Amino acid sequence: MTGTPTLILQPPSRELSIKIADTLRFLSADQVERANSGHPGMAMGAAEIATVLMTRFLRIDPRDHNWLNRDRFILSAGHASALLYSMLHLQGFLTLEDLLNFRQLGSRTPGHPEYGDTPGVDASSGPLGSGFAMAVGMAAAERMLAEMYNTPKFDVIDHYTYVLCGDGCQMEGVLYEAASLAGHLELGRLIVIYDDNGITIDGKTGLTFTENVADRYRAMGWHVQDVNGQDIEAVAGSIEAARGEKVRPSLIIARTTIAFGSPGKAGSAGAHGAPLGAEELAAAKAGRGWPVKDFHVPQEVTDYFDVRRGEWLVMRQEWNELFAAYGKKHHATARELLRVIAGDLPKQWKNATAEFPVDRAMATRAASGQVMNQFGSVIPELVGGSADLTPANNSEIKSGAYPEFINKGAFLGRNFHFGVREHAMGWFANGMALHGGFIPFTATFLVFHDYMRPAVRLASLMKKRCIFLYTHDCFLVGEDGPTHQPVEHLAALRAIPRLHVWRPADANETIFAWQAALERRNGPTAICLSRQELPILDRSRLTPARETLKGMYILESEGELQAEILILASGGDVTLALGVAAGLREQGRSVRVVSAPCLEVFKSQADGYRKKILPKRLKKRLVIEAGIIQGWEGVLGDSGVFIGMDDFGHSGKPAMLAEKFGFTVPAVLERLGKAGW
Amino acid sequence: MTGTPTLILQPPSRELSIKIADTLRFLSADQVERANSGHPGMAMGAAEIATVLMTRFLRIDPRDHNWLNRDRFILSAGHASALLYSMLHLQGFLTLEDLLNFRQLGSRTPGHPEYGDTPGVDASSGPLGSGFAMAVGMAAAERMLAEMYNTPKFDVIDHYTYVLCGDGCQMEGVLYEAASLAGHLELGRLIVIYDDNGITIDGKTGLTFTENVADRYRAMGWHVQDVNGQDIEAVAGSIEAARGEKVRPSLIIARTTIAFGSPGKAGSAGAHGAPLGAEELAAAKAGRGWPVKDFHVPQEVTDYFDVRRGEWLVMRQEWNELFAAYGKKHHATARELLRVIAGDLPKQWKNATAEFPVDRAMATRAASGQVMNQFGSVIPELVGGSADLTPANNSEIKSGAYPEFINKGAFLGRNFHFGVREHAMGWFANGMALHGGFIPFTATFLVFHDYMRPAVRLASLMKKRCIFLYTHDCFLVGEDGPTHQPVEHLAALRAIPRLHVWRPADANETIFAWQAALERRNGPTAICLSRQELPILDRSRLTPARETLKGMYILESEGELQAEILILASGGDVTLALGVAAGLREQGRSVRVVSAPCLEVFKSQADGYRKKILPKRLKKRLVIEAGIIQGWEGVLGDSGVFIGMDDFGHSGKPAMLAEKFGFTVPAVLERLGKAGW
Repeated sequence: MTGTPTLILQPPSRELSIKIADTLRFLSADQVERANSGHPGMAMGAAEIATVLMTRFLRIDPRDHNWLNRDRFILSAGHASALLYSMLHLQGFLTLEDLLNFRQLGSRTPGHPEYGDTPGVDASSGPLGSGFAMAVGMAAAERMLAEMYNTPKFDVIDHYTYVLCGDGCQMEGVLYEAASLAGHLELGRLIVIYDDNGITIDGKTGLTFTENVADRYRAMGWHVQDVNGQDIEAVAGSIEAARGEKVRPSLIIARTTIAFGSPGKAGSAGAHGAPLGAEELAAAKAGRGWPVKDFHVPQEVTDYFDVRRGEWLVMRQEWNELFAAYGKKHHATARELLRVIAGDLPKQWKNATAEFPVDRAMATRAASGQVMNQFGSVIPELVGGSADLTPANNSEIKSGAYPEFINKGAFLGRNFHFGVREHAMGWFANGMALHGGFIPFTATFLVFHDYMRPAVRLASLMKKRCIFLYTHDCFLVGEDGPTHQPVEHLAALRAIPRLHVWRPADANETIFAWQAALERRNGPTAICLSRQELPILDRSRLTPARETLKGMYILESEGELQAEILILASGGDVTLALGVAAGLREQGRSVRVVSAPCLEVFKSQADGYRKKILPKRLKKRLVIEAGIIQGWEGVLGDSGVFIGMDDFGHSGKPAMLAEKFGFTVPAVLERLGKAGW
Repeated sequence: MTGTPTLILQPPSRELSIKIADTLRFLSADQVERANSGHPGMAMGAAEIATVLMTRFLRIDPRDHNWLNRDRFILSAGHASALLYSMLHLQGFLTLEDLLNFRQLGSRTPGHPEYGDTPGVDASSGPLGSGFAMAVGMAAAERMLAEMYNTPKFDVIDHYTYVLCGDGCQMEGVLYEAASLAGHLELGRLIVIYDDNGITIDGKTGLTFTENVADRYRAMGWHVQDVNGQDIEAVAGSIEAARGEKVRPSLIIARTTIAFGSPGKAGSAGAHGAPLGAEELAAAKAGRGWPVKDFHVPQEVTDYFDVRRGEWLVMRQEWNELFAAYGKKHHATARELLRVIAGDLPKQWKNATAEFPVDRAMATRAASGQVMNQFGSVIPELVGGSADLTPANNSEIKSGAYPEFINKGAFLGRNFHFGVREHAMGWFANGMALHGGFIPFTATFLVFHDYMRPAVRLASLMKKRCIFLYTHDCFLVGEDGPTHQPVEHLAALRAIPRLHVWRPADANETIFAWQAALERRNGPTAICLSRQELPILDRSRLTPARETLKGMYILESEGELQAEILILASGGDVTLALGVAAGLREQGRSVRVVSAPCLEVFKSQADGYRKKILPKRLKKRLVIEAGIIQGWEGVLGDSGVFIGMDDFGHSGKPAMLAEKFGFTVPAVLERLGKAGW
């Protein structure tokens, strides 16, 4: 008994296949026409490819769109969403009503595929290249789960990851990064169909894209085929061959005609992103011998998919039986697999860490490495890596199950060498999170967040639990200079909706930042960490570190009522804040210090708590953060003082830079004196 | 008389070449050792390559580091800055004192090469891949200037662009994008030497980077060679062959040993980013028969470069004579070339535009297209293009000199099809601006700024005049949905130091946004433009549009004294602000409306003007901007109301979205009512 499906599928006849393709083609064109907005071109041209996938290969079940061993299908060319929705309609995920509401507010059929809005959509894939790059993470997740949870007799995880992408995806740098990584990792179950229609928005791809794509992929270790994408048997044969290739990921270059079937617009850029127009659509239908009626689905097609749905149900039932037998034999393992897929953390996981003693100084990046390993030792689904900064980011999991690096077809491990591929790394993490079974983390320097920003945005939009580690979090990077010193990056991260941005003040706040990130099920977390050593704050004198979880808390105070100055800071600047507070007290002032490790979490606290931390009467507010003011002005109020950055950094010794930028106790006290405090 | 140098160079002997290489190697290692910080590995391994470039090929002159026809040399692997500084020292750009101050605050030898800090540094190249990608823009600029300004007898522009990059660069997606574009464009004078030392920070490149780089570049239309990078004659031969190849750009894969010469650390990742240590450095010197003395330069080497500087002087003098003769024959053309190189705009350029009449509505993206063409017709150095959104961005120059698209070796034109390569496009623009002779612009949707953010950051750091056009500037993109709707992007742009971010309110503000961008010599500008039509504001009733140049101005007011409510808005939201003002006035309130097209420019106004626009007494401040609040809180003050976004958008009709997000006059009035105004 293995995981391979026993059901032999009978592909539809040639005639029926063509009918299905035309159904998809015109359902897609009709959606765009009705919405008077959208992208009919690729949707029409790739209808044969979609037909082949649906009728011969995809193992899914519309009755359970979260079936864990379903094949994943990612439309990386997300603008062709109408095609995806047509597929989902025939498959049984979407209703005709859904198609009628294409691109309307609140519908299940938004302009680009949106994960969470639509059953059967495995990823949001609006930004070009992103779907492909996420699929690489999904395909890796599949192999890793298979290695971790399959047994010789039970291949409970053995699905494929299919991608349909276009020319636009191919040109994006992130796609190269992801493809290079996929080739290296030997993701043989990743099958990418490249809809090569030779047309982009600006015109023929030959205007700017003349490389030999096949050779380029071969150079990256891919299995490459080249077929006529309008030829159903040819496409089917190529996918069969791709499935036969076990080591290399597969690229099928499917040459198609954009807006295939449209007599006036086929092959032209004009068909990419605008409705065909009623007349042209009618002509296309006439040319294909298709009824003029909108949203027409021939009875044979409906009948066929009724049967096909039966096949899909059997597939899943067979898998359910397989899983039941597996569960009987390997009770604990099966339960563990279901746990990680559900995204539940193991019991008692929080006990894995212990607070750091106060007897040392420690960079929060170093603390993070230890905390990650402590949690990692009890949370085997925590996996990830760095974009070639593993030692600097302290991002290797060295403890717990499988503390190896994954490499070239060896998938039993939890660490990745992502290479200098920050952007693909971000999407890879998203793909793993979307697949399920893992809590992925990534790591690089904070300043290089810029390289991977599109992925962080989409993790936030899709509400996926990814953990983005960013070390070297301010100008104290020092000698590497302004290209390596983040200035605007905390603000830029905080600008992304739904993202939680942590900047712990010491080793013990780092524990709770990690805890919050792991616990957060509905969105990603960025954790920004110091390169430089920071004293571990003495919690016998200060507020306990667990208050970190509130986002902001009073770290040091002389009581509720008498404080006249409020100092807020994050990360390493908290130590400076405590020094400034001491200096002010020497001057006879009464000061409260608030540690602010996460502004977003603080904003979600109850009104009463927020008012306690930021009482209205306390107008003398000093904020210290080695970044720009953006995001702090609301906290600061009209009478506050901000110690931060308003220009790029410089190369030099950290201590010299701190002097230059005024991040010393005397410099801050002088600023306050000048402000008349 | 042509531009080719008549001086026949006598390469140094084998022995002397090796001595020069060892000088570079140990000057580099000594810098890192003295600074106790830096990257000795590649600097030591690539010393032979640097030697060959300096002694046989580079046409530069330390007496004039801005010589317009100098060869450009970009160290894309910027962490090997010590090698670059050693080269610049031997060449005569830097002193020994400079090397002694390596990585110290205020020195001319910062941790990574910083354009502007160091004579002879042609680009800041800290972020990996960026130097290569900028070099592609430089090489295109060279060919374009040659086409525009050379004459059959006078090749006044005919230099090469050399790049030295490493494995880290090769893995970055942006480098793929740039390489693909360079291959397509047939930039035969671009010569890239890839220091393939097989080592990255994480260890051997084989851990994650196993593609066939040579085949991949061949697939992209490159001329590829593979040589022993420690073999001086082999490297020289490969560069000679690369220069002989006129059509294809060249990649020379130079296999080197990281930290070549270090007995204990050669070939290991440990040599990448940390000093060798005194003992190991001494052993390395001993092994190469080198004096232990720090910063040793043998007399023969000094003598050789004294002669070499003479050759360089002669090269430049010959070119000066060539240019003088050219100027005599082609007076106006030569003057024009000098003008564009100096970055001066042509006389009367501002007269090219006329204000738009009030009789229509017009998207600012459409107005931008017209304005750009009007300015472009008199400013031939304005060149650029879109990342495959030319029609949507209105970014084609159709008027003035050479309104063609540049393509495949045909460089007489001013438009580029950048392809779906936002990131490379940004760096390409930086490269053109660094080269001189052009004011480059780029275009894409605002939401895809994320893909090119690293380039925009560096344009700002390097203070280069690039114009980044971003259309589709808010949720009114509509049906394309949240992946295409910017929310945090205005804030994220404004977060970048030195960048000016414009969001014009109508067609006429667009004129002045463009004017400001063109006039700004010391930094880049982003112009954010509406997809949707906007009424052209009636300036007979409102303040003249030229006030736009102040960044914020009172658009509509009932006089200085009586206003009790201040409304600020940018872009399309200004129209909404005027509607809200009208509604408030109907309620008997007195309102002032401020248009805020550029917050950064406003901040640079005199204190008096700023106080006039934002008088302290006016506490009821309403800000309307279809983005997040970040960047506005300081303007808003403690009692303001912000109408903006705090989450991602949705797919739907623009008008429905405006309802949903509260961007209508009644919704805003209701908000104010609830606020007790």
